[in-house]
Amino acid sequence: MYALTSDLGDRPIARCNVLGAVPFSEDHDFLNRPYLTESHRKTLELVRMWMTAAGMSVRLDPLGNLLGRYEGTQANAPALLIGSHIDTVRNGGRYDGALGVMLGIETVEALSSVGRRMPFAIEVIAFGDEEGSRFPASMLCSRGIVGGIGEEALALEDADGVSLRQALLDFGLDPTDIAKAARRPGEVLAYVEAHIEQGPVLEARDLAIGVVTGIAAQLRLKARFIGEAGHAGTSPMGLRTDAIAAAAAGVLAVEQICAAGAPDLRGTVGRFLPKTAAYNVIAGEVEMGVDLRASNRPVRDAAAEQIKTRLAQIARERGVALEFTVVQDLPDTPCDPRLVRVMTEAVEAVGVAPFQLVSGAGHDAMAVSGLAPVAMLFIRCERGISHNADEAVAAADVALATRALVAFVEKLALENAVETT
Amino acid sequence: MYALTSDLGDRPIARCNVLGAVPFSEDHDFLNRPYLTESHRKTLELVRMWMTAAGMSVRLDPLGNLLGRYEGTQANAPALLIGSHIDTVRNGGRYDGALGVMLGIETVEALSSVGRRMPFAIEVIAFGDEEGSRFPASMLCSRGIVGGIGEEALALEDADGVSLRQALLDFGLDPTDIAKAARRPGEVLAYVEAHIEQGPVLEARDLAIGVVTGIAAQLRLKARFIGEAGHAGTSPMGLRTDAIAAAAAGVLAVEQICAAGAPDLRGTVGRFLPKTAAYNVIAGEVEMGVDLRASNRPVRDAAAEQIKTRLAQIARERGVALEFTVVQDLPDTPCDPRLVRVMTEAVEAVGVAPFQLVSGAGHDAMAVSGLAPVAMLFIRCERGISHNADEAVAAADVALATRALVAFVEKLALENAVETT
Repeated sequence: MYALTSDLGDRPIARCNVLGAVPFSEDHDFLNRPYLTESHRKTLELVRMWMTAAGMSVRLDPLGNLLGRYEGTQANAPALLIGSHIDTVRNGGRYDGALGVMLGIETVEALSSVGRRMPFAIEVIAFGDEEGSRFPASMLCSRGIVGGIGEEALALEDADGVSLRQALLDFGLDPTDIAKAARRPGEVLAYVEAHIEQGPVLEARDLAIGVVTGIAAQLRLKARFIGEAGHAGTSPMGLRTDAIAAAAAGVLAVEQICAAGAPDLRGTVGRFLPKTAAYNVIAGEVEMGVDLRASNRPVRDAAAEQIKTRLAQIARERGVALEFTVVQDLPDTPCDPRLVRVMTEAVEAVGVAPFQLVSGAGHDAMAVSGLAPVAMLFIRCERGISHNADEAVAAADVALATRALVAFVEKLALENAVETT
Repeated sequence: MYALTSDLGDRPIARCNVLGAVPFSEDHDFLNRPYLTESHRKTLELVRMWMTAAGMSVRLDPLGNLLGRYEGTQANAPALLIGSHIDTVRNGGRYDGALGVMLGIETVEALSSVGRRMPFAIEVIAFGDEEGSRFPASMLCSRGIVGGIGEEALALEDADGVSLRQALLDFGLDPTDIAKAARRPGEVLAYVEAHIEQGPVLEARDLAIGVVTGIAAQLRLKARFIGEAGHAGTSPMGLRTDAIAAAAAGVLAVEQICAAGAPDLRGTVGRFLPKTAAYNVIAGEVEMGVDLRASNRPVRDAAAEQIKTRLAQIARERGVALEFTVVQDLPDTPCDPRLVRVMTEAVEAVGVAPFQLVSGAGHDAMAVSGLAPVAMLFIRCERGISHNADEAVAAADVALATRALVAFVEKLALENAVETT
């Protein structure tokens, strides 16, 4: 039906690679493309050209989101949004975010190249900020299209003290217009995001692509173990209340509880901060950060309770005090069941064994789910590496992803046609 | 025989308390008396007055050690040195070091007040530097009287870039004279140091004082666990090489091995330094510092071997790499067996159940053991707290310590008399 050339895989990768260096990066030595910077502006100029060449009419919304619209069979039909973010973290990878935008363009190109129109419009969107690497807030732009960004956000400041208000002005945008970035629910049929997995699951299962069933519920707990500092040479082993040893037992408890739990349960102690760092001082205090994720809240919260109980038991047995604080509590974002089914069929249609997985990381789809049903497609990436120059994807996998997106659009059109008949 | 008034305990404490504040501290808010500072100079002026009042002739040696000499029955007899250090760490306690000097003065005062002379001289010594809190070297002054400080030490610089050479000049001393601080072996009969325990052992045994049999052998190992950093949300538990989890297992192994070992074996992980500290990043690397001490080297080294084996096993099982570095290796310093026996009898003579223990911390006696046989007496301190404003000792304990030192001197004189007859 379509000319499925190797372009489907090679071109999106080549485009991401072009965007992975100056002038599309603030830095020469590593990829760094924060929101509303010169490298962001240059990137949008180029992406606009690609969108236009693929047959889209392009506009920049008041938050700096670039939208390429490919009309459907009727004018002003509700749009299927396909996209991801175009910003990167400092020292980011080339495919995190950008690949999802390129795949949206590739999907439209596959349709437009044969003059095919759907009963809905397709809008490819390049969100300006997802990573939150410039201002102290993340997903500013995907929250913005849902109407979730108010006037107060304009006061946010970057590390140089530049406000979001000023940054928008400098970008040629009118800060008083940001509310106009919000889309009306009737305008948007659904949102589909393709993204590198940023994890090792697909690779471990030898699968090019996978269907995301939802974005995990996240909980961040801070646990503070408080013993008493002492001299490493003068305190016998039995007379110590060593906060590092207590917290170490806590780390292993988190690991053991989460390894024994549901396959999608993940518990990480990524912060382990003793107050002292001397060979000869028994630590009096350790702050430990626990990151807990699961596809649904009850699984996550049951693990959190188990962890709290075990940590309290460890503290009691070791005679140290323990304090807990909840630092962050994000609910899970299920993908739309119908869209998950359609995407699963699309993956199967391109010859890949359909596999469903939960996204442990957050994505723009979390924010957009407040506006429309969402779906996500994950693409295998090498060794799960992300937020790093070593991020890598295979052209063959990307080609399969493009074909799956096209199949998804076709199936959705068919179902919509049936539904609207 | 002597007028054993409450002065024996109250006065040394009162003197330490006076020295615990300005002008004997560089800082108003906490005790800070580094080597060759204005607070050090003021301290020596006052200590000189106390030494003189106790019947001693006082001199400052070329390294800034203050020596008060109480002659024996014959002029130029070899001297029993009693002392400790007069410097403190930043935010130090009032008794660490200073109490040993005050107890030396108190001991001489007990003798001089009744006109009693020994067959040997007694020299009370206030070492200028033990803590190493000004220059990047410790025990400069006790090593100096052994002849262990050469010209090259003069180039050492403090945090402000002031060299030891300049600091000695500023203190009114001649840096070219430092070799003259060295004592000839024949001049020194023995060295006795009284010191707060800085640990909880005597308190746990309800004992005021204890006899030190030696200073522990110390070994410092750096272990570096190297896994691979990953995303906390996207990496399933089974596909991680989490350096924090590996190092946590290492902490518990060190603790378990040392708790199961000899009573004087101590193992501490006081340094636990992950390269990352984010909730959502699985740590790729942790540096862990292990401090190992035991009364003798074979016990310590056997524990070190056990620890290395277990850590290597943990690393293997978890698929992380492990590197070891020996950071410091100090042999043990046994106290002189004859002096230990005499001190034990002295403790018993003042009505305290004789108890022997190993010093886990380093002391000037380590350095002086290169010159003469050494002995140490430990004084119970509250909850083992030291290097801290909360350092506290009981007057009754200090009085017992003074009486034990006097008894020690008497017994030594008696034995020396017997030996020389």
